[in-house]
Amino acid sequence: MSVLIQNGRIITAVDDYHADIFIENETIRIIGTELSIDADIRIDATNRYIFPGGIDPHTHLDMPFGGTHSSDDFETGTAAAAHGGTTTIIDFAIQNKGSSTLDGLDIWHQKAAGNSFIDYGFHMIVTDMQKDRLFELKRLAEEGVTSYKMFMAYPGVFYSDDASLFRTMRKAGENGTVVCIHAENGIVIDEIIQSALLEKDKRGPKWHAYTRPTRMEAEGVSRAVAIAEVAESPVYIVHLSCSDALDEVKRARNRGIPVYAETCPHYLFLDQSKYESPGFEGAKWVMTPPLREKWNQDKLWTGLQFGDLQAVATDHCPFCMKEQKELGKDDFSKIPNGAPGIENRMSLIFNGGVIQKRISLNKFVELTSTFAAKMFGLFPQKGTIAVGSDADLVIFDPNRKETISVNHPLTHHMNVDYSAWEGFEVQGLSETVLSRGKIIIDHHQMKGRKGHGQYIKRGLYTGIP
Amino acid sequence: MSVLIQNGRIITAVDDYHADIFIENETIRIIGTELSIDADIRIDATNRYIFPGGIDPHTHLDMPFGGTHSSDDFETGTAAAAHGGTTTIIDFAIQNKGSSTLDGLDIWHQKAAGNSFIDYGFHMIVTDMQKDRLFELKRLAEEGVTSYKMFMAYPGVFYSDDASLFRTMRKAGENGTVVCIHAENGIVIDEIIQSALLEKDKRGPKWHAYTRPTRMEAEGVSRAVAIAEVAESPVYIVHLSCSDALDEVKRARNRGIPVYAETCPHYLFLDQSKYESPGFEGAKWVMTPPLREKWNQDKLWTGLQFGDLQAVATDHCPFCMKEQKELGKDDFSKIPNGAPGIENRMSLIFNGGVIQKRISLNKFVELTSTFAAKMFGLFPQKGTIAVGSDADLVIFDPNRKETISVNHPLTHHMNVDYSAWEGFEVQGLSETVLSRGKIIIDHHQMKGRKGHGQYIKRGLYTGIP
Amino acid sequence: MSVLIQNGRIITAVDDYHADIFIENETIRIIGTELSIDADIRIDATNRYIFPGGIDPHTHLDMPFGGTHSSDDFETGTAAAAHGGTTTIIDFAIQNKGSSTLDGLDIWHQKAAGNSFIDYGFHMIVTDMQKDRLFELKRLAEEGVTSYKMFMAYPGVFYSDDASLFRTMRKAGENGTVVCIHAENGIVIDEIIQSALLEKDKRGPKWHAYTRPTRMEAEGVSRAVAIAEVAESPVYIVHLSCSDALDEVKRARNRGIPVYAETCPHYLFLDQSKYESPGFEGAKWVMTPPLREKWNQDKLWTGLQFGDLQAVATDHCPFCMKEQKELGKDDFSKIPNGAPGIENRMSLIFNGGVIQKRISLNKFVELTSTFAAKMFGLFPQKGTIAVGSDADLVIFDPNRKETISVNHPLTHHMNVDYSAWEGFEVQGLSETVLSRGKIIIDHHQMKGRKGHGQYIKRGLYTGIP
Amino acid sequence: MSVLIQNGRIITAVDDYHADIFIENETIRIIGTELSIDADIRIDATNRYIFPGGIDPHTHLDMPFGGTHSSDDFETGTAAAAHGGTTTIIDFAIQNKGSSTLDGLDIWHQKAAGNSFIDYGFHMIVTDMQKDRLFELKRLAEEGVTSYKMFMAYPGVFYSDDASLFRTMRKAGENGTVVCIHAENGIVIDEIIQSALLEKDKRGPKWHAYTRPTRMEAEGVSRAVAIAEVAESPVYIVHLSCSDALDEVKRARNRGIPVYAETCPHYLFLDQSKYESPGFEGAKWVMTPPLREKWNQDKLWTGLQFGDLQAVATDHCPFCMKEQKELGKDDFSKIPNGAPGIENRMSLIFNGGVIQKRISLNKFVELTSTFAAKMFGLFPQKGTIAVGSDADLVIFDPNRKETISVNHPLTHHMNVDYSAWEGFEVQGLSETVLSRGKIIIDHHQMKGRKGHGQYIKRGLYTGIP
Repeated sequence: MSVLIQNGRIITAVDDYHADIFIENETIRIIGTELSIDADIRIDATNRYIFPGGIDPHTHLDMPFGGTHSSDDFETGTAAAAHGGTTTIIDFAIQNKGSSTLDGLDIWHQKAAGNSFIDYGFHMIVTDMQKDRLFELKRLAEEGVTSYKMFMAYPGVFYSDDASLFRTMRKAGENGTVVCIHAENGIVIDEIIQSALLEKDKRGPKWHAYTRPTRMEAEGVSRAVAIAEVAESPVYIVHLSCSDALDEVKRARNRGIPVYAETCPHYLFLDQSKYESPGFEGAKWVMTPPLREKWNQDKLWTGLQFGDLQAVATDHCPFCMKEQKELGKDDFSKIPNGAPGIENRMSLIFNGGVIQKRISLNKFVELTSTFAAKMFGLFPQKGTIAVGSDADLVIFDPNRKETISVNHPLTHHMNVDYSAWEGFEVQGLSETVLSRGKIIIDHHQMKGRKGHGQYIKRGLYTGIP
Repeated sequence: MSVLIQNGRIITAVDDYHADIFIENETIRIIGTELSIDADIRIDATNRYIFPGGIDPHTHLDMPFGGTHSSDDFETGTAAAAHGGTTTIIDFAIQNKGSSTLDGLDIWHQKAAGNSFIDYGFHMIVTDMQKDRLFELKRLAEEGVTSYKMFMAYPGVFYSDDASLFRTMRKAGENGTVVCIHAENGIVIDEIIQSALLEKDKRGPKWHAYTRPTRMEAEGVSRAVAIAEVAESPVYIVHLSCSDALDEVKRARNRGIPVYAETCPHYLFLDQSKYESPGFEGAKWVMTPPLREKWNQDKLWTGLQFGDLQAVATDHCPFCMKEQKELGKDDFSKIPNGAPGIENRMSLIFNGGVIQKRISLNKFVELTSTFAAKMFGLFPQKGTIAVGSDADLVIFDPNRKETISVNHPLTHHMNVDYSAWEGFEVQGLSETVLSRGKIIIDHHQMKGRKGHGQYIKRGLYTGIP
Repeated sequence: MSVLIQNGRIITAVDDYHADIFIENETIRIIGTELSIDADIRIDATNRYIFPGGIDPHTHLDMPFGGTHSSDDFETGTAAAAHGGTTTIIDFAIQNKGSSTLDGLDIWHQKAAGNSFIDYGFHMIVTDMQKDRLFELKRLAEEGVTSYKMFMAYPGVFYSDDASLFRTMRKAGENGTVVCIHAENGIVIDEIIQSALLEKDKRGPKWHAYTRPTRMEAEGVSRAVAIAEVAESPVYIVHLSCSDALDEVKRARNRGIPVYAETCPHYLFLDQSKYESPGFEGAKWVMTPPLREKWNQDKLWTGLQFGDLQAVATDHCPFCMKEQKELGKDDFSKIPNGAPGIENRMSLIFNGGVIQKRISLNKFVELTSTFAAKMFGLFPQKGTIAVGSDADLVIFDPNRKETISVNHPLTHHMNVDYSAWEGFEVQGLSETVLSRGKIIIDHHQMKGRKGHGQYIKRGLYTGIP
Repeated sequence: MSVLIQNGRIITAVDDYHADIFIENETIRIIGTELSIDADIRIDATNRYIFPGGIDPHTHLDMPFGGTHSSDDFETGTAAAAHGGTTTIIDFAIQNKGSSTLDGLDIWHQKAAGNSFIDYGFHMIVTDMQKDRLFELKRLAEEGVTSYKMFMAYPGVFYSDDASLFRTMRKAGENGTVVCIHAENGIVIDEIIQSALLEKDKRGPKWHAYTRPTRMEAEGVSRAVAIAEVAESPVYIVHLSCSDALDEVKRARNRGIPVYAETCPHYLFLDQSKYESPGFEGAKWVMTPPLREKWNQDKLWTGLQFGDLQAVATDHCPFCMKEQKELGKDDFSKIPNGAPGIENRMSLIFNGGVIQKRISLNKFVELTSTFAAKMFGLFPQKGTIAVGSDADLVIFDPNRKETISVNHPLTHHMNVDYSAWEGFEVQGLSETVLSRGKIIIDHHQMKGRKGHGQYIKRGLYTGIP
């Protein structure tokens, strides 16, 4: 099957030009002007940008947490992602403590297989990396799992101690794989939480934020980076939320340590005043790290502009207010941590970045797709528009304005009963989406099918992206 | 006329793939696999990289300095550049004090017109920017001169005071143009030089280096950046040579100031021990800033890797040892400042960067071509391999090893009687070069013609590249 | 003559104890408990602190500026200082351009001789330091003038270019003397002022502040420090006003450069909202640098606490609103720069520092007296309470509260028609003051006499204070 | 009993003057010139400095470690200290895991009581601070133990986790006490050690150093400071050894966190080349942290000069080569960690600091005595020469030169079979020492008696020293 997309404005992380794209089978075969080639399908992309399909390197679909599961599974979550212009996700499989990481991988394959609308890969959440298990890392890499996530937070749940971090990083460095870090000093934070919970008036959602100071996130980054330096391994900081933590990234990069970091849309646009919402409303934004003071946003944007932050991921981890978030009605520490966002990332960053003139179109592509592809071994199959690459493409209308709402049929396909972005107006919307040459969204309408999405074996980290 | 380049490995600042390139007239029309198109010329690029033609944003051809002229003119200099894989230069026109910048531009047009083998643009060296002359900047921009160079060094010659810097930067910021800065505190340096010259044993070439401390370069950067910040203008630091100066760039970027900087091959590979060469030999490397202590090199490479330095330019400004450098035989301050390099840049950076695993292939392209194109308004006409762009292409043999020498027919076409890189072995050599679709170098043989090179009107600075 | 001060609590920059002090002639001879010595005068200091007399290293008495003179001369100014607990000032003599610094010194001797109530020394404002004048610096040192002030601001008036700075610093470094720097890029600032003055609505006092951005002060500090580093000389930054400038001091000290800095009470307590006062009122605080955004104050206090700032001086330079400040009624650039403060420094710093628990009693003494004595060659004659030192002592009531006002007989003896601190309540007031063993203020009453104050030949800078 | 010391040059952390000191009973009663008072004993201090007795805030006497005990007990250790001019030590009592800290204190009282030649206090090494034990901290403070040491190193032995650190710091902050930190990431270091021990050729003493990278010390400092910041507590870093760690101290102080740090003589003068000594010789310098690369020394001195480091302690923890160090003959990890130094500190710092012109005499006193007194609640009883203070005095000969040796009767009274400083020449030696008015060393001869030394109840931390 072949597709010819005509007259679009093609944007990659470096280029910007008008041309036609000819797709044969699943990949891009020819790019040129005025291509006179027969094609099974023709798409007119006049006045539209064509972006590489978005890559969201941080999602939690169908994830058990705090006695419930994130409310989007691979079916609903990837459908919503597709609507939003994301054509690849890297979800987090979980090693159960005491079990093999390979067993964890099996479980995630089962969750995803036959259910996904878009391609997907897995990171492995390592919760228990004793020496006699280090050999599994090579096996995982052979299975295409070339990155792990380790938590400095959540003692007793996902937490890894510094010995495990070091051991895993050193092996990762040898193997050409990457450790991703949730960087917060969970040991201290839990101590603070326990203190807070002793007081009656410190039980509402906002105490989630007050018990997780930015300095404890910065400390986590500082420590992760120091350990990675000694382990001679790259390190990738997930969901960096604040200036204090960013400063640690800058310092390390200034001394030549290969540290990378992502932030999330909520840290770029929302702030901790949300927790002052009436009643239990603040629970909508109980994610970790929490929203921060507003002045941090400018610092994060500067980080993106100047390359100290390299990616924007969603950390999509939705829980419904009803029955899920409510579990923490009387105790903030029992509110399932996480918020929805997989669908809105591209519009939010386009609007806040390109329309508001903070970043170039090329940087937009880098942040939403290309960097993640290079960092996590998906490139050049994913993450660019080039001959030979998968035809994962987003035809994007840069002028369309919509107001994000849980009730808006164009902005909310996620299986969650609220939007973290309710009432937020954006300019720029994904219109038509191709995944490996197949139109899965056609003018906002789902044309894909469950099971089209394939597991992607990711390659090794190849040095400086 | 049409050209089909087959089977090459195409490298841009972001992509890396195998495909054929079809060129029609002067630009790239189609990129694809197994293109079955008739073409006037076919080139087999099997086992070769195809890079965007190099852009050297810092050359001084036919430039008057210290009572003589740089020994390469537009004919010899651009021929040598072409041999080395550079297809565009931005040379520095000079405003004569008290005269219009536009007159300076005329003079440089006369030097270049009909003489160049490759395309060229001009920066304008502003030496005298009184308020009543600010209007010229807009005129220059209309003529395609959208950047200026100002000197904080060389009092009485090129020096501009801080008021001129501020005034010009503010206007540049308004106009969408860019001020490039030679950042050294020339006022203090001249004071140091005068002191040194009072002593008999401080007359040799090495005193050129000892009288220009790194702190005085760092001070220049710090000041230029501070003035740019207040003037609300971007600023581009030329020929940054040392860690102290780089630290100032980092600090400014960390606080969100759009400061950019280039370094040069000599600062990345050579160090100040060269000045201990016997006799007058050290004069070969009397350029400004001078070579620095060796430990600075690693810091500069880290700067390139992490994006705090964005380009590598040559500052090509050759003077023959005989009759030219010799002018300073008894007084280092009379040695014409400058060294040759226009021909060797691509090989040197490929070898030291890619082969020695400091940077990726993509970064190599960014540093030698793409960034300069974006920074200085040449993009997307130049600086990438994309449909619609000029077919300025380098077919590069990544395995070819040569030892650079003034006597080597493949490494020295420059009109200067020594090589700054004598005996330096490199892997990676430009083999065949196209300029706007025309083969100008064919397997190391000059096939181009004087006058093929055109003046390029450059566009405005468009924000973050 | 002898004095015995009994039962006071003696505070030095390091000590804190109760004892009696026996003074014979002009110096302290004995300190001990329960001293049973006959003395001509006995003072009971029960419940009082005894501090070393305050040293104000930055005053401008009887100084010509902007077509007028600062309104306090040596008689009125030193009387006010004495009331406030300051027993030594270092005033600024001025070299007239083209004249000898020694002539400038003569003029200042004439102003001071026979008129001062307290001891005094002179810095020399160097406005014109050509090479053939460098020899004067040694002569000045022999006369007890071991420090100079040089201006990076005020082009055409006090301004010195970087060559003069370097030359003077190098000689100062050789001689064991110190260059004090007014660190602002006056060249750029004048350019900004000229632009502002072209607009009708930019003529009021607040434009004095808006035309002097903090970045231009930071730039001055950065440059002064860089030049001092190369000149191998210590450097002392006067009236540092803001966090941006302080950061430059920290950076230099972190790399081991002997840079010192003072701030002034107005930068610690007042902020730029003062310039929004109605009408021409804002002119009261037109000093240079101007008052800054309020958040800077905490940073300055942190600098004092952690030793990055070492002294608090007043930069006392009063001009009456009537007839003096009014000169700039229609043009902020014509408002004489300066504000009164010589009398209120000790109370302000005691209140804001000690009472508000920002600094210890010892640090209070260090900031108001000891450091200046050590920095400027007055130690141990001045700046401490030790056997052999001059009996310059302040008996201070730490509990007395007063509201500073131009109309308050205990807080305003300065010859100026307004107080910069009107309505400011302070706790802690100087009660009785001795200068070289003589009671000059007795329970707030002037008992001294004009001419008691002597010129102090200051010694050399002796390294790290 | 009374003593009159005549004609000495008295040096405190701020003062420097000639006077007589009259001591009655145990304290200084009068300081003055030409005192004509009868005294039981007269001492002529002509041509001598009189310093406050040295305070060594970091000693480990009679301490169990690695299956043996440090070889100096309170008798031998304090005698050696007295010879070296130290009149007060703060030794480290140890809480046994699972036992009360108060029990630990009892044990140390038993070790010291009746045995010490000089006064002493105790820090408490906290190894097990569960919530239900926090109340002990107040009890300890009542007993005069107002500071604790916690270890981030030595897992399974002294190690405290971050929750214990936070909990203890928060309580310390509330109580006005101080946590001292051994800042090294022992968790990672142990992992590195285990790896090294798997290899046959990594068993010698030098591997002690190679397995403890500076980055892991810096990480410890960074983390300790971050936790202290959130706990709102001051923090004191013990035995800081390297530039990387110092940078973390600077950063924290720059943002206003009350962090203090000591270094030790061995880090200031010795470097890691010592570990290349033949055979097992390197074991002499197996202490923790290990000796570092030589370039760190200059950075530490700069830290002392500019106030980022505030004290020099010995971390005296001697083990004989024979039978003790030998325990690790075949396994560096079994070498008892520690080195002798209590006797040589004053001479070493005087020589390297004052004689080599790195610091002033006053700074020498601050580093060796005054700061520790203020930090640890001994001031003004100890740490200065002032009326009312204990007559702990050192009469010091600044010109005497000796070569330190285990065989030299003037430099080695410690009970250990080697000197860490063998062959090191110093200028400046303690000659006569008074402890609370009693001559305990008279012209290098021990005149004191075991049991003269008293336990000192230390006071609270009073804010910025």
